[in-house]
Amino acid sequence: MHERELTHYLDECRSLVLDEIRTIVARDRRVGADEGLLWQLMLDYPLRDAKGLRPALCVATCRALGGTLEAVVRSAAVLELYHNAFLIHDDIEDESLVRRGRPTLHREHGVPIAVNVGDAMLALSLQPLLDNIETIGLGPALRTLRAIARMTRESVEGQALELDWVRRGVVELSDADYVRMVEGKTCWYSFIAPVEVGAIAAGAAPEQIAALCEFARTLGVAFQIQDDLLNLAGEIGSYGKEIGGDLWEGKRTLILLHCMRSCSASEREEIAAILAKPRPSAAGDDDPTQRLAALVDELAAAGELSPRALERLRARLAGSPTHKTEADVRRLFALIEAQGSLAYARAIARAGLLDARERLRACEAFMPPSLHREFLAALVEYVMARER
Amino acid sequence: MHERELTHYLDECRSLVLDEIRTIVARDRRVGADEGLLWQLMLDYPLRDAKGLRPALCVATCRALGGTLEAVVRSAAVLELYHNAFLIHDDIEDESLVRRGRPTLHREHGVPIAVNVGDAMLALSLQPLLDNIETIGLGPALRTLRAIARMTRESVEGQALELDWVRRGVVELSDADYVRMVEGKTCWYSFIAPVEVGAIAAGAAPEQIAALCEFARTLGVAFQIQDDLLNLAGEIGSYGKEIGGDLWEGKRTLILLHCMRSCSASEREEIAAILAKPRPSAAGDDDPTQRLAALVDELAAAGELSPRALERLRARLAGSPTHKTEADVRRLFALIEAQGSLAYARAIARAGLLDARERLRACEAFMPPSLHREFLAALVEYVMARER
Repeated sequence: MHERELTHYLDECRSLVLDEIRTIVARDRRVGADEGLLWQLMLDYPLRDAKGLRPALCVATCRALGGTLEAVVRSAAVLELYHNAFLIHDDIEDESLVRRGRPTLHREHGVPIAVNVGDAMLALSLQPLLDNIETIGLGPALRTLRAIARMTRESVEGQALELDWVRRGVVELSDADYVRMVEGKTCWYSFIAPVEVGAIAAGAAPEQIAALCEFARTLGVAFQIQDDLLNLAGEIGSYGKEIGGDLWEGKRTLILLHCMRSCSASEREEIAAILAKPRPSAAGDDDPTQRLAALVDELAAAGELSPRALERLRARLAGSPTHKTEADVRRLFALIEAQGSLAYARAIARAGLLDARERLRACEAFMPPSLHREFLAALVEYVMARER
Repeated sequence: MHERELTHYLDECRSLVLDEIRTIVARDRRVGADEGLLWQLMLDYPLRDAKGLRPALCVATCRALGGTLEAVVRSAAVLELYHNAFLIHDDIEDESLVRRGRPTLHREHGVPIAVNVGDAMLALSLQPLLDNIETIGLGPALRTLRAIARMTRESVEGQALELDWVRRGVVELSDADYVRMVEGKTCWYSFIAPVEVGAIAAGAAPEQIAALCEFARTLGVAFQIQDDLLNLAGEIGSYGKEIGGDLWEGKRTLILLHCMRSCSASEREEIAAILAKPRPSAAGDDDPTQRLAALVDELAAAGELSPRALERLRARLAGSPTHKTEADVRRLFALIEAQGSLAYARAIARAGLLDARERLRACEAFMPPSLHREFLAALVEYVMARER
């Protein structure tokens, strides 16, 4: 399958799933209700430019196993709703600034609205899964519900793990710790659950589902390592997240963990000290403390402040927390480059992708040739080649 | 039933439900996992001092209809998990400071952790509802799931409505608008869903469930109006929330709406202007801008600042948003008292409680006499008499 066909397949699945999401959201909207903003914002992240890997993975798995589009599209839409709800809440929790090339939802509408919109998307997800009983039958509908219950637990646990590391300043972590966190935080809802739910909709046997989930898990970890690499490279237009955002947020990526293992003890202390600083307020130049500090500097230079006034104003301003600076983040990046940590992470990602390719090949034993099976294989090759 | 027996019934139900919540939370905890904080914080709000109306309402309804404790306790625990998850997120959204006599979770642990803990509690709620299939049978388990899907939708919509009013500065609202918001935001998870889920667990007929839900809705609206009244009275020790917190948060209570309808046009404008101001940062005295303003005043009084420096520093400080002040809140309260809005709200709450009492009496036609039915009746009398 060529890249053009792959893109076409992705676009088609994404479009089908978006239609289904629109239906789910619209069905619940009461005529005459003026909660217009909520309904509009529930579609905000889903409608932003995205490749749509998850919907395609879910649909292709189902159809490659002989299932129908009708059997899977509603569950695929629910997964996408969950995914976007988690993104909104994760962006608040990680204090992220950019998502899919635009400011994060809480920066555009405030934290209160963003928490509520995420909760609303989670709240809308349950009823369609119950409606599944009528379309795919009781057994598969209940198995889908169980898969999604597991997914949500794994996701919040992975996110809790990462938050806890950042909050407590934990830096002594192994690659296995990283993998455990990433499996929870991103693999479950981006890879494992889409494949599992697709396979359930097709009525696959438990051992087939297990083999496909292992493929998805392997692909997902490698994909996330690639994502971490892309976060440190490229230009904002082509990536859609903030470049270097992971460093500002203090994320414990495989790259950073390798760097910390490889560098000297004093460099390690230096990194830990930088990571311990909070990122500057998203308000940036609007941060009142930062603006006041600039004004005090200006007045001091113009001789407008008595030495005593200057001393006391500076002391008070210094009482505000010290944030990470551009120089800090550049320093982290230099240390990472010096330790060859990017090359290390690239090698681990590549090994994972080769493993995923093998695992998918093994699954072909129970998936006859089809466009959908071709798509799954092409997706692995695409991820291998992706540079943005 | 005397108040002592009522309290005993409440305590017993609360204790049973807390044990069940501990089981749900512990079951998911992996041996050796170090996400200790997450598991601990999921129990934080549930373990804070509370009367436990919801668990008791759910259990009593089930048992008054001839259902068993075993049939209902797990669902009651899930409702309590949902309720507490919503409380955590609502407290973030409303910027509340105090919950059940202690600082809100996001003030103690930061917004990121609090968003994650709420999500984790929601995530843990699905699996026990699926396990219900084995204990209460497929039909009741699915009806319970549908009731909870409805509850979560109604809750986030009610919350969205209120957030939207505060954010957009909407003040022209009727009592019916207030009731619609309150039905969503608090009645569903505090009254309607507990009664509905209890009745489903007992295998009640649809028309019986509908009658009981109407009783619960009526009781819930009256209870919330009482809660709004208590928020403006009493002492912090006896109420557990911040006194006057609703005024600081700019909540559109029935009391405030009555006051705005009754006062003069100029007073109405004054109220709208106060409501439009944000509440001061929860940091209070730690707010860097507020502390700097105090220092500038002090330096100016000591003659340490040149006129030019003083002017420029004050201009910059004035650029920060103007927050509500103590005087603003006291002014709102005075206007509310002058319009007799407290007495108005008290009368509406009382009428609602009388209505709820009648509705419950009508339901006694299909609920034979029992301790549990007595508890429901006593609960209405207790709410009528409650002053804290």
